[in-house]
Amino acid sequence: MQKDLLFRKIEKDDFNKYYLHLLQHLSIIQPSEISIQQFNQFIENLTPKHSIFIIEDTSSQTIIASITLLIEDKIIHNMGKVGHIEDVVVHPSYRGKQLGKILVEKVIEIAKQMNCYKVILDCQDKNKVFYEKCGFENKGNQMSKYF
Amino acid sequence: MQKDLLFRKIEKDDFNKYYLHLLQHLSIIQPSEISIQQFNQFIENLTPKHSIFIIEDTSSQTIIASITLLIEDKIIHNMGKVGHIEDVVVHPSYRGKQLGKILVEKVIEIAKQMNCYKVILDCQDKNKVFYEKCGFENKGNQMSKYF
Repeated sequence: MQKDLLFRKIEKDDFNKYYLHLLQHLSIIQPSEISIQQFNQFIENLTPKHSIFIIEDTSSQTIIASITLLIEDKIIHNMGKVGHIEDVVVHPSYRGKQLGKILVEKVIEIAKQMNCYKVILDCQDKNKVFYEKCGFENKGNQMSKYF
Repeated sequence: MQKDLLFRKIEKDDFNKYYLHLLQHLSIIQPSEISIQQFNQFIENLTPKHSIFIIEDTSSQTIIASITLLIEDKIIHNMGKVGHIEDVVVHPSYRGKQLGKILVEKVIEIAKQMNCYKVILDCQDKNKVFYEKCGFENKGNQMSKYF
C-alpha cells in the first residue's frame, strides 16, 4: 500500500474526512441527513464484534475505503464464531490499486485471530471473481426481503 | 400451529429440552462437547440484537425448531438496520407442518418492529423455493472462506 495510505479502525473524526461521502459509492445514503451526533453515537456503539476498518489517504485527510466485520457467536461448530464481512467499498478514484483485496485480507486475519471458523459475505455476480481471488468459494444464494 | 407447540425466545432450560440435539439436524455439533455452563453463558450474552427463537413441543418438553435473528446497525440507508436470519432448523419428525414458514414469518415481523429496512439470509439451492414462498428474492451470491 502506498505510504500515504493508512489502514486503521474507524474513529469519530472520520465524519470530517468525508466518510459518509465514501458510502455514497456503496449504497443509498444522504450525508446531509446524518448528524455528527448520530455518527458519534454509532462509533461509540461499535465493539470488537461489530467493527469497521477504513483506509485513509493521509495526504488529503480523506477516507477512501471501508469494510465492516461482524462476529457472530454460534452454538453450532461447538460454540464456533463466524465473521460476516459487510459493506466493502473503495472510492472510484482509488480503484485498480488492490485496496479492496488489502481490506479483505486484513479483515480475514482479524477474523482468524478472533477464532472464527469461517468468514462469509454476500456479493453481486459482478464481484464474484474478485472474492474468488481472495480465496472465497460460492456456497449458496443470498435471499432478501425489503420492507 | 397445533396447540402443543409454543413459539418463544430461547431460555437456559432448553439445554435440558434437547436443543443441542436439534442443532445436529442443521450443522456440525457434538452436544456432549458443550457444557451447561457454556450454554448458560451463551444465553446470557443474547441481546435484542442477537436473539434466538424456538418452537417447543410442550407435550414432550422438546425443542423442535429454531431460528436466529441478528440486527445489524448500518450507516447506509441513513442509519438503517438490517435483520440477518441464521440457522433455521425444524426437527425432521416435525417437517411438512409449515413450521419453518411460521418461524420465518414471526422473525420477519420482529425485524419490522425493530425498524429494519430489509431482512436477508443465505440458503442452499434446495431451499430457494421455500424462501421465495416466504417473500424473499434471490439478490446475490453467498461467498465463504473456511479456516
